[in-house]
Amino acid sequence: MKTVPERLSALREAMAQAGCDAYIMPSSDPHSSEYAPAHYTAWEYFSGFSCENSNLIVTADEAAMWVDGRFFGAADTALAGTGIASMHMGVEGVPTVSEWLGERLTSGKVLGYCAETMPLKQMRQLADVCEKQEAKLADLPLVDQVWVEDRPALPATDAWILDASYAGKTPAEKLALLRGKLLKKECTAILVTKLDSLAWLLNLRAADVEDTPYALAFCYVDFDTAVLFMDTSRLSADAAEQLAQSGVKTAGYNEMPAYLAEATNEQTVLIDPSSLNAALYNALCDNDYYSIVEDADPISMMKAIKNETELTCTRRAHLIDGAAMVRFQMELEQRLASGEVLRETDVDTILHKYRSSASKFITESFPTIAAWGSNAAMMHYAPKVGSDAEIQRKGYLLVDSGATYYDGTTDITRTYAVGPLTEEEKLDYTRVLRCHIDVAMAVWREGATGGELDMIARQPLWRHMLDYRCGTGHGVAHVGAVHEGPQSLRPHNEIVFVPGMVITDEPGIYEEGRVGIRIENELVCMEAGKSEYGRFLRFEPLTFVPIDVSCVLPEELTREEKDWLNDYHAQVLENLTPLLNEKEIEWLRVKCAAI
Amino acid sequence: MKTVPERLSALREAMAQAGCDAYIMPSSDPHSSEYAPAHYTAWEYFSGFSCENSNLIVTADEAAMWVDGRFFGAADTALAGTGIASMHMGVEGVPTVSEWLGERLTSGKVLGYCAETMPLKQMRQLADVCEKQEAKLADLPLVDQVWVEDRPALPATDAWILDASYAGKTPAEKLALLRGKLLKKECTAILVTKLDSLAWLLNLRAADVEDTPYALAFCYVDFDTAVLFMDTSRLSADAAEQLAQSGVKTAGYNEMPAYLAEATNEQTVLIDPSSLNAALYNALCDNDYYSIVEDADPISMMKAIKNETELTCTRRAHLIDGAAMVRFQMELEQRLASGEVLRETDVDTILHKYRSSASKFITESFPTIAAWGSNAAMMHYAPKVGSDAEIQRKGYLLVDSGATYYDGTTDITRTYAVGPLTEEEKLDYTRVLRCHIDVAMAVWREGATGGELDMIARQPLWRHMLDYRCGTGHGVAHVGAVHEGPQSLRPHNEIVFVPGMVITDEPGIYEEGRVGIRIENELVCMEAGKSEYGRFLRFEPLTFVPIDVSCVLPEELTREEKDWLNDYHAQVLENLTPLLNEKEIEWLRVKCAAI
Repeated sequence: MKTVPERLSALREAMAQAGCDAYIMPSSDPHSSEYAPAHYTAWEYFSGFSCENSNLIVTADEAAMWVDGRFFGAADTALAGTGIASMHMGVEGVPTVSEWLGERLTSGKVLGYCAETMPLKQMRQLADVCEKQEAKLADLPLVDQVWVEDRPALPATDAWILDASYAGKTPAEKLALLRGKLLKKECTAILVTKLDSLAWLLNLRAADVEDTPYALAFCYVDFDTAVLFMDTSRLSADAAEQLAQSGVKTAGYNEMPAYLAEATNEQTVLIDPSSLNAALYNALCDNDYYSIVEDADPISMMKAIKNETELTCTRRAHLIDGAAMVRFQMELEQRLASGEVLRETDVDTILHKYRSSASKFITESFPTIAAWGSNAAMMHYAPKVGSDAEIQRKGYLLVDSGATYYDGTTDITRTYAVGPLTEEEKLDYTRVLRCHIDVAMAVWREGATGGELDMIARQPLWRHMLDYRCGTGHGVAHVGAVHEGPQSLRPHNEIVFVPGMVITDEPGIYEEGRVGIRIENELVCMEAGKSEYGRFLRFEPLTFVPIDVSCVLPEELTREEKDWLNDYHAQVLENLTPLLNEKEIEWLRVKCAAI
Repeated sequence: MKTVPERLSALREAMAQAGCDAYIMPSSDPHSSEYAPAHYTAWEYFSGFSCENSNLIVTADEAAMWVDGRFFGAADTALAGTGIASMHMGVEGVPTVSEWLGERLTSGKVLGYCAETMPLKQMRQLADVCEKQEAKLADLPLVDQVWVEDRPALPATDAWILDASYAGKTPAEKLALLRGKLLKKECTAILVTKLDSLAWLLNLRAADVEDTPYALAFCYVDFDTAVLFMDTSRLSADAAEQLAQSGVKTAGYNEMPAYLAEATNEQTVLIDPSSLNAALYNALCDNDYYSIVEDADPISMMKAIKNETELTCTRRAHLIDGAAMVRFQMELEQRLASGEVLRETDVDTILHKYRSSASKFITESFPTIAAWGSNAAMMHYAPKVGSDAEIQRKGYLLVDSGATYYDGTTDITRTYAVGPLTEEEKLDYTRVLRCHIDVAMAVWREGATGGELDMIARQPLWRHMLDYRCGTGHGVAHVGAVHEGPQSLRPHNEIVFVPGMVITDEPGIYEEGRVGIRIENELVCMEAGKSEYGRFLRFEPLTFVPIDVSCVLPEELTREEKDWLNDYHAQVLENLTPLLNEKEIEWLRVKCAAI
């Protein structure tokens, strides 16, 4: 195993041989995945630091890595001594990737990148910088040259088809819907390259990405043909048959560029420049039979609006998950009360025991965040065995976790009082709860965007000049990634909410060195009704797990908020009772008592 | 005085002679004013119906007038029997102007318009329709030909300069600021054609538009020159001197096109296509020395953000106005209690008596809306002597009024209980009050838009599937128009609020045939403070007049809302006391008692 300086030195040698003055590695894979398979994590290999939403740039005598707010502290620590500067994105005075390159690239210099893992949109930004500086942008496979011996293989997990009894529609039905969308956009073909879009389109699942049940593959769809590009030996016999019945042909994972080069039918191909990789774009451009239309991936919205079957299954998944959460909390309370020493990583062990005992359990949906005390102030804290904190008998324990079942994917956060609380801690908790409830009970006239709804969430904190440095909530895929768009509760998000969209409601307070509190349910957008003023929408909870009311200052809640909380707990008790034994029901009854 | 059919027939004759198949008259003047001087109201002359935000189109055998939601009922009544169809804008199935024209214009047909009163943006839309239909768009001065004998003259009221002790800056200082903005936009000149922009730029005031203290004029500004185009005989000696000292030259109102034609210096001219009229645009295009840059009028934002002097004066104006409102309410209560028969139009008489007695009174800022009972459900109801309702001793009286003083312009609505109320009426009032308060006490992290803040206002109504079919609030000019942009509280408004912006907060309930309630204060955006999360903003009331708490169901308010209301009334009492006599103070003390 080489050290980071050794790896960088090998890369610089390859750069010198290729006449490359700067080399950029975005945190991406050929599918613009948020979380990439280890095979593609070059930015991590060459920096020694793991994160998403990043860029690593190396020149002959400099290196810099851009990280977002979630990773500032961790990056500073990890990169110290590597010669790689930790660049805090969005902070005043810190240059952007384009600005940094603009200062270093001069006439005739060469900026290298790998087209296969470079989203088209980013490549165009780089091309702009190079054009201004009269520098050259070159597709150079330096990562493949340098990172060979200790590079993880491409994932090749078993691939299967999610039955239509869970997905609501067969691949054939979804292909027909997609072709209808193409027709409306006056296109005749589409490249489906995002793993989540592909998973939805063909009901295809695997385990290629950690905690996310997707398969590494591409798909080409026109009005006559659908071709799935993946290692077909991974497909179960049943899956292969279902795909064949849906008219889906197959080819190797790497064969899409050749397929595009050989095509001799005129097609107007829809592509999404924010996710299509530059190599596939080049392949399209090289074939004169293709006209290209750029637009948002239409599957993104199709999959965000869940169908009735998906919603029914999702509700079932949340009840199974809720029962596991109840059992987890009972065991946690009992073991803490017995005086046992528990550490943060024990939380995941207990949770996994209960969740994985469900017959439909597939995987955790992300690494469990269990953070005691001020650790919870780090929004994306991940406890590690050996360095995790002991859960002491005071303050809060924050637990953010979830799982994917055949019925659906869950994401839930609860913050538990594990000992005495200060008045300030109770006030923090109550304010976060108010934010949560105000979103959960919002009603709006059809047409409101995520950005507009986000305002409602923050009022109880903003009135005291408090805030959280992230969105209020994100979409969740069905039996898929725990993050999905295009909807989100986030300032200035312009997607209009429509019935069937799932969103998390997870406001928080994160005060460094002091406290971290988050309360998260998943909600689904539903019709509230119609009046002379139009059609009104609201959210309905999908998550049914008690919220720790021992931390609440009831006099700080409005009557409507209190009514919501009591009504929610009545639903929790009613919905979970059929899944629990008598002792568990007795425990739950106490937790769900009205305040 | 001709009848509407006679007028239409004269127009059709002129159209036939000119070879014109359809003639369009937008509700505009050469300055794209919201309220146009009577000289320009051709759409009203030819239809017999007065309204804003309209278009009248006449063909050889058809005529149609487009009206917005405020005017549906009134337009239906007024247009019945005229042969002019009442077109309800925004209603499903009702064609837009473009759609209606598209169905009627065929190849070779001619659509006529008057370039002088046609905003460039609308002209382009018409040009698009004509191009699609292979029809012709022709600038034809048919209104000037047909509407001669009974046409009001151009207004020519005395024009004066608002002293810098009120305006905060001299015309010279404002010209310097404007030139700075031009420089940033890489422009060297601007056409200032909107009356409100011009009034702000040169501190110029007159009374050319009813209830709005503006002068009909244009201004050309480049880095060396500023030329005011208006009838200079109207300028007071003092005004003429101040303008001369500020380097402003003058020319006749109609001389701008000739001035633009004769220019021989290269200029990059900033224009706003949403307000520049097509005739001036054509004049610019005809002179090769001009390059044109299209963007929003920069003065719009400059004037919307009030300076310290404007704010100090505005606060003073609202106290003067508040004292008048107190005296009005006292007299109203007394006369109603005495058994006197009062009608809706009496309200304006009483209000005018008190407001106009202030030494700095200039004019009412709009025609007083006084609406009893279900009349108040018509959002823009204007009572007329002879047809106005008697104020009976039950339900609500809604009074929306305001004035312009040398210190500033006001706009206030109060809804008074004038007799017994039903529980439903009290609940309506309380819900509207909650909407009002929730905006008034909102705090937000810098960056929120009017559309995002509008969400907060509507929650107390939307939760019950109620709503109001208008924005929550609009800007108000300083010593000027009662409506100003670009900020507004309205779904999807994208203007970011900044300190110094003034906005009305006027949610309402309007249930046809039953009830109309509106509670309106003016607010100013201020900094709330800074924290580790950034800079926070909030609103502060400018209006200080008691809100009728006898209509409130206190148990429906949250504790925070009740605190806000009691605190507001304490401020009303404290702020108005110095302006009132002992008897008035005693009365006010009762009205401002905490609930």
